[in-house]
Amino acid sequence: MKDSNQINNIKIEISYDGTNYYGWQKQPNRISIQEEIEIALEKVYNQKIELIGSGRTDSGVHAIGQIANFKTSNKINPEKIKFALNNFLPQEIRIIKSEEVEANFHSRYDAIGKTYKYQIYNNKIKSPFLNKYSYFIPYELDIDEMIESSKLLIGKHDFKAFKASNSNINNTERIIYNLKIEKENNLIILKVTGSGFLYNMVRIISGTLIEIGAERKHSLCITEALETGNRQVLGHTAKPEGLFLEKVYYEHI
Amino acid sequence: MKDSNQINNIKIEISYDGTNYYGWQKQPNRISIQEEIEIALEKVYNQKIELIGSGRTDSGVHAIGQIANFKTSNKINPEKIKFALNNFLPQEIRIIKSEEVEANFHSRYDAIGKTYKYQIYNNKIKSPFLNKYSYFIPYELDIDEMIESSKLLIGKHDFKAFKASNSNINNTERIIYNLKIEKENNLIILKVTGSGFLYNMVRIISGTLIEIGAERKHSLCITEALETGNRQVLGHTAKPEGLFLEKVYYEHI
Repeated sequence: MKDSNQINNIKIEISYDGTNYYGWQKQPNRISIQEEIEIALEKVYNQKIELIGSGRTDSGVHAIGQIANFKTSNKINPEKIKFALNNFLPQEIRIIKSEEVEANFHSRYDAIGKTYKYQIYNNKIKSPFLNKYSYFIPYELDIDEMIESSKLLIGKHDFKAFKASNSNINNTERIIYNLKIEKENNLIILKVTGSGFLYNMVRIISGTLIEIGAERKHSLCITEALETGNRQVLGHTAKPEGLFLEKVYYEHI
Repeated sequence: MKDSNQINNIKIEISYDGTNYYGWQKQPNRISIQEEIEIALEKVYNQKIELIGSGRTDSGVHAIGQIANFKTSNKINPEKIKFALNNFLPQEIRIIKSEEVEANFHSRYDAIGKTYKYQIYNNKIKSPFLNKYSYFIPYELDIDEMIESSKLLIGKHDFKAFKASNSNINNTERIIYNLKIEKENNLIILKVTGSGFLYNMVRIISGTLIEIGAERKHSLCITEALETGNRQVLGHTAKPEGLFLEKVYYEHI
């Protein structure tokens, strides 16, 4: 029998440019972030290792601080693991931190909150530098109206209307702790922290606030959506290239 | 005889991600920014048009506000030209401004100064997002020492030592009006404004300041180089991906 004392639980923090990947989640015939890291893990440890992520990110979505964990009996210094993995990873994916954590830590089940960032490039002409990292909106946006409307989302709500139609999750109650919108030159940055997010929730929030900023929707559509759960009254799902998973929160770590 | 009143001189401002280009200057068998814009000009105007740039940028170097001009007898609204050109240009190149200027304006001869930005990503692990837009330096840099040393460069000097060895220019006197170094998180940003810059000058300045920050060179090497014109006492030529042509200055415009 294996001695369980020998198993280390390793938590890693990952930054990635998701432009050329089919999202986080491993899937047949399409290259994902999870698969790339598992390939690197196999090269470092000479065995297949399963990587558990804090949650999926969609095709084209980026991460500044995605969290994942894996178990190994190998005794490589936990803080050195990041360098070993980066050696085998494409430059679009970087392990920025690696550490040993308690045996029962689970990056998905233990996550108590997340922060996402959504970037809108609001100018008549696209930026050659921000193309892959923002949603290009050439028409004028009323940022004050967007900020005012965003306040309706804060708190504990049933966000049923704010999920992709192909998501079949039952419990759609979530808490949004904080939602900030700031403008730096032509870049509008939306930051939202919540207990958790439904599939496409941040992109539907962003698309709705953009349409409110463009006076194509009224802020009341948010109130209506929260009351009725009707996806149809909200704005479109904003493009994936503007979205970044910024931080995942855990209780003790 | 052509009526000279019919000729318009059009000034354009260009942003580009130089990663996949062999620099600004047109050359055989290699794709350049200048050539891409001339191809777009031909599509818009149905004739070959020569584009005059304020100066070259090297392979892999970027621009936020490169300036160029061209002449045409076509009467397209000057401010709309940017949209017409952007229609035919790859997304890495954007015309951000177009306007009619005086007949004798020449983007190279009339330039009286330029600002360049050089970005250094100073962290143990590369950034997936800044890879193509900064020079990655994994070792620690003493930024105060870099700032202090950079002051030696300000003013009118013979910058002979600060040019690429294959550059045969005669007059190597230039004025540096301003040189600022700032740190934002892991990004060190150097901004330098001068009357003009020799070939590779900003990259040699950056490479030298990096080596001073790493304590591999002493700031006295700058004094020595300015006095003797000896390239050898300075640091290496910093990589092109960190360099951005930010602004070109003209007297009346």
